[in-house]
Amino acid sequence: MSFSEFNLIERFFVREMPARKDVALGIGDDCAILNVPEGQSLAVSMDTLVEGVHFLPNTSASDVAAKAMAVNLSDLAAAGAEPAWVTLSLSIPKVDMAWLQDFSDTFHDLLSHYGLQVVGGDTTRGPLSITLQVHGFVPESVALTRSGAEAGDLVCVTGPLGDASIGLQVAQQKLKAEGDIKQYLLDRYNRPKARVAAGIALRSRASAAIDISDGLLADLGHICSRSSVGAVINTEKLPISEAARKVTNEQSAMEHALSGGDDYELCFTVAEDDFRKVQSALESVGVACYEIGRITGKNGVRVIKDGETLENKKAGFDHFVVD
Amino acid sequence: MSFSEFNLIERFFVREMPARKDVALGIGDDCAILNVPEGQSLAVSMDTLVEGVHFLPNTSASDVAAKAMAVNLSDLAAAGAEPAWVTLSLSIPKVDMAWLQDFSDTFHDLLSHYGLQVVGGDTTRGPLSITLQVHGFVPESVALTRSGAEAGDLVCVTGPLGDASIGLQVAQQKLKAEGDIKQYLLDRYNRPKARVAAGIALRSRASAAIDISDGLLADLGHICSRSSVGAVINTEKLPISEAARKVTNEQSAMEHALSGGDDYELCFTVAEDDFRKVQSALESVGVACYEIGRITGKNGVRVIKDGETLENKKAGFDHFVVD
Repeated sequence: MSFSEFNLIERFFVREMPARKDVALGIGDDCAILNVPEGQSLAVSMDTLVEGVHFLPNTSASDVAAKAMAVNLSDLAAAGAEPAWVTLSLSIPKVDMAWLQDFSDTFHDLLSHYGLQVVGGDTTRGPLSITLQVHGFVPESVALTRSGAEAGDLVCVTGPLGDASIGLQVAQQKLKAEGDIKQYLLDRYNRPKARVAAGIALRSRASAAIDISDGLLADLGHICSRSSVGAVINTEKLPISEAARKVTNEQSAMEHALSGGDDYELCFTVAEDDFRKVQSALESVGVACYEIGRITGKNGVRVIKDGETLENKKAGFDHFVVD
Repeated sequence: MSFSEFNLIERFFVREMPARKDVALGIGDDCAILNVPEGQSLAVSMDTLVEGVHFLPNTSASDVAAKAMAVNLSDLAAAGAEPAWVTLSLSIPKVDMAWLQDFSDTFHDLLSHYGLQVVGGDTTRGPLSITLQVHGFVPESVALTRSGAEAGDLVCVTGPLGDASIGLQVAQQKLKAEGDIKQYLLDRYNRPKARVAAGIALRSRASAAIDISDGLLADLGHICSRSSVGAVINTEKLPISEAARKVTNEQSAMEHALSGGDDYELCFTVAEDDFRKVQSALESVGVACYEIGRITGKNGVRVIKDGETLENKKAGFDHFVVD
């Protein structure tokens, strides 16, 4: 059975859903024609996941869809933007109806959950990879960026760190885990949750924000270089899950928390005086807030354990360097 | 030498250029923050080119860049939109500095030519493929779509048809060509020109439009199905280049003109009374206008040669069906 590109998109990715009013023309023409609401800027981000690079071969279609969506929505979260539209380029080695059904079922569950609409896309024959572009709305004056951190600000994260890279090692059978603990860690790697509501709650409150995709040190490093500041992290304050503690030792859990990628928690900075307000704003959307360190005037990210600075050679995860 | 994803985008795709005023925040943060001018809708389109599917292996980096850009800008042209921003996801098997330099040089020449700005992107390790999303502006009320054709309208195209698929056969050494003729045909396949100025000139004037990527019959078929009409094409009126006539016979040139993909000329419909106005609007931007048939009340696209209807089994080019 063969399908034209047009039919694949129409068949699997356009379903009965309440159409968004800001979509004047959706899928099925040369372009989508879209209207950004007055007073809002458009936040966009594009990310690609390649089988064997960003997810393991034989990852379920549902997990691939969940991860592709989370990775992209996480960028909107880091900007404090409200999700609106998505475009999808799917490269698949062959037309596997069951795979497409599973992928698109999960994809649609997430569209419904976030009120997103698919407005364009392309399917091509090729090695399995998924490129999404997400589009969201945020008033320009309250958009979160990487560049507003100031010396003295607190450094915070929205959830436990290191779970995803530990989950990858569990999936690769480099670490052993069983039952609920195993499932929790695998889900943290395969089905991360984008902190969309948290990002919106942080508008006008956080001084800078980023999502942790490449590891805390690397991503906090991006905040520091864009803000021309440094940072100090206290390892004792790093939030580490019970599951992570159970499948690995303290030293390894700490290294995963510092350098492991793919957690998709937000890392943000906030003036000390605003901390309580931020904490309660996050609490109101059911998201935790862990203070883990402080922004400094000096360059670079320093890690303190038991009062001493650690050497950190692993600056984070890089798809071109690490296999 | 290895490069992080961040550095690849920064190094090759962000260059000294006059920044667009509608870009509040460009590359280098989690999202770009963009402002659509008042009174304008946003037109977006995403297309992927995969080596071995959409272009031949060993196509030059410059040709790959030119084609990727043209294929995407052609969708904006078909909507009558003015190009503004582009995002780029580049999947490359390895970091080849010379290839990246050539690719990005051509890419930047085209950015400058169209006044486009790169506002986001991603580089990943994987088989060579390029996904672009283009973003343009058009007032909603004058955007061109596939759905406005009416019985009696004339069917027109903006340039010779079939050159690109003949060029592909020349590249594959299935057809022989020499000198300027060879170069012309190869360029028509590898470096098509998006009819951006023509699309803008057709605003409010054409009743429907599409770009010819999958072949005239398939793409005119999309206009017909979206407009609930049919069409009749007269083969004698098909614009066929001198080069095409020289390297193949009349019958084959006609088949390429009807079913060959990748020409990226616009096919549009226009009320008979508006034809002269459209012709001179296109002339003023240096683009030809060939009337090749007429919209009818019946479904389907019929092809007439010497007064008789041809059977057309080849409905056009489909990347999942045709190799």
